[in-house]
Amino acid sequence: MKKVVLLRHGESLWNKENRFTGWTDVELSEKGRDEAVAAGKLLAREGYLFDVAFTSVLKRAIKTLWLVLEEMDQMWLPIHNSWRLNERHYGALQGLNKAETAERHGMAQVMLWRRSYDVPPPPLAADDPRHPGYDPRYAALSREELPATESLKDTVARFLPYWRERIAPAIMAGERVLIAAHGNSLRALVKYLDGISDEKIAELNIPTGIPLVYELDDELRPLRHYYLGDAGAAEEAARAVAAQLKG
Amino acid sequence: MKKVVLLRHGESLWNKENRFTGWTDVELSEKGRDEAVAAGKLLAREGYLFDVAFTSVLKRAIKTLWLVLEEMDQMWLPIHNSWRLNERHYGALQGLNKAETAERHGMAQVMLWRRSYDVPPPPLAADDPRHPGYDPRYAALSREELPATESLKDTVARFLPYWRERIAPAIMAGERVLIAAHGNSLRALVKYLDGISDEKIAELNIPTGIPLVYELDDELRPLRHYYLGDAGAAEEAARAVAAQLKG
Repeated sequence: MKKVVLLRHGESLWNKENRFTGWTDVELSEKGRDEAVAAGKLLAREGYLFDVAFTSVLKRAIKTLWLVLEEMDQMWLPIHNSWRLNERHYGALQGLNKAETAERHGMAQVMLWRRSYDVPPPPLAADDPRHPGYDPRYAALSREELPATESLKDTVARFLPYWRERIAPAIMAGERVLIAAHGNSLRALVKYLDGISDEKIAELNIPTGIPLVYELDDELRPLRHYYLGDAGAAEEAARAVAAQLKG
Repeated sequence: MKKVVLLRHGESLWNKENRFTGWTDVELSEKGRDEAVAAGKLLAREGYLFDVAFTSVLKRAIKTLWLVLEEMDQMWLPIHNSWRLNERHYGALQGLNKAETAERHGMAQVMLWRRSYDVPPPPLAADDPRHPGYDPRYAALSREELPATESLKDTVARFLPYWRERIAPAIMAGERVLIAAHGNSLRALVKYLDGISDEKIAELNIPTGIPLVYELDDELRPLRHYYLGDAGAAEEAARAVAAQLKG
C-alpha cells in the first residue's frame, strides 16, 4: 500500500482581503503560518516521515512546506518546486477584490468563471506587468506553456504531466511523498485520482492546513482517503470555504 | 566572467555553548537567524539574483538559506541538499564542551585535531546512537561513504566530487549559484579554488553570515574574491573567530 499526503496552504494576505490571487506571489498571513505549524505538529505527532516533498513556485505554498518540515524536524528533505503545482492562473482578475469584480462583471459571470470547468477569466495582456513572462521564475517556460489565464481544465492539463512524470514515479518507487500546494492544483489531483466529473469537481473543497492522506494501491489507484486530526474540524473547515465562496 | 557566492551559517545553539558540533543537527541561535536575515538583506540590496542554491542536510545551513531567500524574495529557487556540503564530522568529540575536551585530552591534542590537515578525532563507535548510520537522511549512503569521524582532508575529499559533478557544471552553464554551508565545507572549496596548501588551510577563517563572492573565469579559475558589505566588518569577524579558536 502506498500513501501520498496533500496539504493546501493556509490563509494568505489576499485571502484575508478577499482578492483573486492566482499566480500573484502573496505571503501567508499570521493565521496561515499558524495553520502550517499546526499541520506540521499534527504530522509529527502521527509519526509521518517523508522522503521527498513537492510544492509550487509560490511562496504561500513554499512557506507552508518549510514550516511543516521545520515542525517535523525534516528540513533536510529534498524539495522539488514546479510551476505546474501553482494555483490556477486567474488572468486579469488577479488582484481584484471579489466584491468589486462581481459589481463590474455581474455575479453570474463571476460564478461562471469560478465554478465552471472550462471557462477562463479574461486573460492578462502580453504587456501587462503581471504577465508571468516578466517573472524570472518562469524564464524556462515556453510561450505555449506560459498562461495568461486558466480555466480549471487548463490547470488540470498542466498539472497532470508533472504528476505522471515526477510525483507518481516517486510514489511507485516507494518514496513517501508530501505535496504542499493550492486549492486548484490539489483539486486537479483529486479529480484525477478519484475520477471526479468535470461538473462535480468545482464543488469539491479541500480545507486549508489539514493533511489529506490518500492510500493507493500498487497501480496508484485510490483505496481510501482521510483527513488527519479531528475529522469534524476538517469537515467544518470545508463548509466554511464553501460558504465563503457562495457569500 | 562567472560568479559564485559562498555563505557560512551563523551562530548555532552549540556555538554559543562552545561545544563540538560537526554533524549534530543543531539549530541556529537567535543571533544566527539575525545573521542570516542580515545576509539576505545585503544580497538583496546589492541586487543579487540566483538561479540555484546548494546547501547541506543540516538545519543550521538550511535555515540560513531559507532566511536569505525569504529576505531576497526568491523562495522559489531550486535548492539542492547534500551531505557532501555538511560540516566536518567531528567523531566522538561531537557534543563535548571544548574546554572539557581540552582537560580530558590535553590542549595540544585538541589543537592537533582542530588544526592539522589529516588527523581525525577519535571515531564514533558503530553502535553509538550518534553514528550517522542511524539517521534516515543518510540512508542512501554506502558504508564507505558514511564517516564516523573526519580530518579536514576527509572533508575536502567528500566535498570535491559534489563540486565537480553538481556545482561547477551549474556555474559553467551560466547559472548564478549560492552555496550556504559550513566553516569546513567552505574551507574545502576555498582550498581547491585558491590552491591553498594543506599547511595553510587551517589558518583560513571564513566569517559567518557575510556573503563571500568569488569571480571565476570560464574555466572556473578564481579571478578575485571579496566579502559583501563592510569589508572591515568581515575582517573583524574573521579575527573574532580566530581568537575564539585560540581561546
